[in-house]
Amino acid sequence: MAGMARWQPDARGRLEAAALELFRERGFEQTTVTDIAARAGLDKRTFYRLFGDKREALFSGGTLLEEILVKAVAETDTAPFEAVVAGFRRVADEIFADRLELVRMRQSIIESSPELQERELRKLGSLAVAVAAALRAKGVGETTATLATESGVTVFRAAFARWVAPGLDASLSDLIAELASELAAVTSGGSETIAS
Amino acid sequence: MAGMARWQPDARGRLEAAALELFRERGFEQTTVTDIAARAGLDKRTFYRLFGDKREALFSGGTLLEEILVKAVAETDTAPFEAVVAGFRRVADEIFADRLELVRMRQSIIESSPELQERELRKLGSLAVAVAAALRAKGVGETTATLATESGVTVFRAAFARWVAPGLDASLSDLIAELASELAAVTSGGSETIAS
Repeated sequence: MAGMARWQPDARGRLEAAALELFRERGFEQTTVTDIAARAGLDKRTFYRLFGDKREALFSGGTLLEEILVKAVAETDTAPFEAVVAGFRRVADEIFADRLELVRMRQSIIESSPELQERELRKLGSLAVAVAAALRAKGVGETTATLATESGVTVFRAAFARWVAPGLDASLSDLIAELASELAAVTSGGSETIAS
Repeated sequence: MAGMARWQPDARGRLEAAALELFRERGFEQTTVTDIAARAGLDKRTFYRLFGDKREALFSGGTLLEEILVKAVAETDTAPFEAVVAGFRRVADEIFADRLELVRMRQSIIESSPELQERELRKLGSLAVAVAAALRAKGVGETTATLATESGVTVFRAAFARWVAPGLDASLSDLIAELASELAAVTSGGSETIAS
């Protein structure tokens, strides 16, 4: 779910790319930090200066995602749910848009490991906490903040799942907008007509 | 989130009650299966015939919850989101209604342990999978089934959090109904007026 870090010829970017390659080639379990550092032409010490463990090399993009999302929610001057949806659309444009193949690769690695799936779920949980806090900081009541945030996360997850699935040629941002309308219809009892 | 098992003078019920008491008195980490069996006046062998490990003694009610919820969703002849909400209200009436103190006790034990929190999240995830499958079996499209289910889970979690918090005297079933309406308003852009 978290975005790939921006691709730069620096140590962090090289280690993330090497980790992704090796996890795909050998599997997550079979890859060591030594392997990752060697593939990146760096040493283990450099790896551990930048990441806590090998899982981290898959999840460091989450920090950037949270920053962009929280900033967008804080800046968007609309009703709470619309602000969260706008935030996820900005994340889609700034982090995911041109990286479908990388995201698919990362996703299949995560799906191969219950440990990575749990980490992903926990990251999403802490993302939701940060978004709800950003809404409350704008004066939104606690219950509304929770419902708007969780509904935004539902929309993002469903849009993301569609986007990474094969055979669909739509942008993530458009899918988010479409599913946000669909969620509103479904929860207002208008869903019988939208059995898509 | 899962309900306590029905209170019966059988081995399962006695072991669950003993586990709950000991987790509260000594903490989850500090309690052993031997302790639980001894408190229930039974032996370890009996414990392991009924539960995989000590965590299971807190989570076996989840199976009953899932059965009631899936059955209610399958039987309720309304739009998908309304069916999921009706299912959670039936669960509230049949499992939680008279057990606020027990549920609070269980909840504080779960909040004390990241391991138990992860288990709870995973249980909720598999509950959502079962509910979405029940909707699809009624002919509901995949996206609508996902959105209706996830929105129902959001409503249930928010209602549950309010219900177990101190100082509120409302039934869980009423809270679910109230928050379902609020979620529909929030996602339809009507949330500015409901900053509760």
